Amino acid sequence: MTWIVSECLKRVEEITGKEVISIPVDLCDKDELDNVFTKYKINCVLHFAALKAVGESVSMPLNYYRNNVGGSITLLEVMKAHNVKKMVYSSSATVYGTPQKLPLTEDHPTGLGCTNPYGKSKHFVEEILKDLVKSDDAWSVISLRYFNPVGAHESGKIGEDPKGIPNNIMPYIAQVAVGRRKDLKVFGNDYNTPDGTGVRDYVHIQDLAMGHVAALTKILTPNFSGWKVYNLGTGSGLSVLQLVKAFEVASGQKVPYEIVGRRPGDIDASYADVSLAKKELCWEATKDVLDMCRDTWKWQSTNPNGYQVSK
Amino acid sequence: MTWIVSECLKRVEEITGKEVISIPVDLCDKDELDNVFTKYKINCVLHFAALKAVGESVSMPLNYYRNNVGGSITLLEVMKAHNVKKMVYSSSATVYGTPQKLPLTEDHPTGLGCTNPYGKSKHFVEEILKDLVKSDDAWSVISLRYFNPVGAHESGKIGEDPKGIPNNIMPYIAQVAVGRRKDLKVFGNDYNTPDGTGVRDYVHIQDLAMGHVAALTKILTPNFSGWKVYNLGTGSGLSVLQLVKAFEVASGQKVPYEIVGRRPGDIDASYADVSLAKKELCWEATKDVLDMCRDTWKWQSTNPNGYQVSK
Repeated sequence: MTWIVSECLKRVEEITGKEVISIPVDLCDKDELDNVFTKYKINCVLHFAALKAVGESVSMPLNYYRNNVGGSITLLEVMKAHNVKKMVYSSSATVYGTPQKLPLTEDHPTGLGCTNPYGKSKHFVEEILKDLVKSDDAWSVISLRYFNPVGAHESGKIGEDPKGIPNNIMPYIAQVAVGRRKDLKVFGNDYNTPDGTGVRDYVHIQDLAMGHVAALTKILTPNFSGWKVYNLGTGSGLSVLQLVKAFEVASGQKVPYEIVGRRPGDIDASYADVSLAKKELCWEATKDVLDMCRDTWKWQSTNPNGYQVSK
Repeated sequence: MTWIVSECLKRVEEITGKEVISIPVDLCDKDELDNVFTKYKINCVLHFAALKAVGESVSMPLNYYRNNVGGSITLLEVMKAHNVKKMVYSSSATVYGTPQKLPLTEDHPTGLGCTNPYGKSKHFVEEILKDLVKSDDAWSVISLRYFNPVGAHESGKIGEDPKGIPNNIMPYIAQVAVGRRKDLKVFGNDYNTPDGTGVRDYVHIQDLAMGHVAALTKILTPNFSGWKVYNLGTGSGLSVLQLVKAFEVASGQKVPYEIVGRRPGDIDASYADVSLAKKELCWEATKDVLDMCRDTWKWQSTNPNGYQVSK
């Protein structure tokens, strides 16, 4: 286990007052994984493990397919061998590719126009899970399609600590606000959106966590079976500039930015229709953009170098 | 190595007068595969290994994804480690899903409407290969999309010997003709085709083999690089009933048949536009339906129980 993970888990234990059992296992190592399933009685797997950087996936596709797709197949094989047939899967709004209409509903086509190996790997695993459920009705799988997770735990103790230059906007903004980076690069202001910058559906990670609790509750319901997909988002879109302004308000810091060229593969706008999750999971996002920015800032300002301080 | 493979290879050596080096390796076993690449200097891989029964893939999806997708990822990792970056890949017309227009050209969308894990696994590997080539221009990959391979070697020594009930029409017809099965089940005669039975583009396996020689020649050309796809078919469609009639003519045997219900997932018609392979590979099918039927019959009538006789 890397020190960053053990530090993070230590803080989870501080916050919850509960012991967290953690066994670091490479999902591609079938024997190691098998030992875990032999040692513990497992009812349901929440499958978060994956590489997740879009740009990196373009330059290292085999790593992404090996870990995200190959690793998931191994996990499913081991689960099957131990008769553990319930999974909540971390999927992504990326599987929708370029939206044909907005807001995105769960029946929107997937896989079409996924332009990078990360997005494709999420799509492929969804297809594998669907086929598995179709082949054996003892399986139940809930796939949660995350929109843009941001924020930090409200305590300020756990947050995002990307290695190197952040790939995602919120940690980038936070590092600019805390003085680690000069300014934010805004990739394009000529998109077909109100202020020309890209529009996304940002969702607070504590809401996201509660979405998993709701999915877990649902999948453990005695009569539940089959394959279900839910969008996890707030249902409304926010532009890059709106996010920057909100962060300035929440943090009291200036976030200088510079408009630069578009990134290949970026789309105008993406936001979720969240009615299905509300109806069937009794879940909806409760935190707004100011909550997201405030909690990010609390994390970043009290941990300016991420988990490094406790090393 | 199973006796059937070694018997088959023995016959290949008889026909060609050449020794065939054969090392049976599970593609999912990285270490074994690595040994092969360490022992031999390999210029290019022709990647045929896959499970290929559509119906079986629906009931055993994990096996298909493990072997076809996981196995291909392992193979690519080992190739990369040994700096072998040329592959001719056995793909399938199945990747086109339901044709939006006929004949099928290589730029027809893929992945959409692939209804079974076999077809999806072929599509997924094509996507992985495309992404790999995009990430590193030292890779060259030619994907060959087979239409419906039939026939047998003209010597009658090598042919298709399916276990149990054949999944494909030609070996089924041959087993009816030779008296191993009572009659052919024709799945539906209400398709939107001239005689109501499904239309497919059957291609002789010797033509298919020559297509691979052409692809290998192309990929070993010094200036060749990148990702190319070619259809391997004859370019014209044949209905089930036309195929039955042709087989009766070529074999001199009656092939009784019974019309039964459609199989789920079957489409009206599928045939290739073969102009790209003709132009760029200088390849085209040379054998017609009578050749296909005659060679199948020669194989089946001289080997009524497949390779069994020499066991």
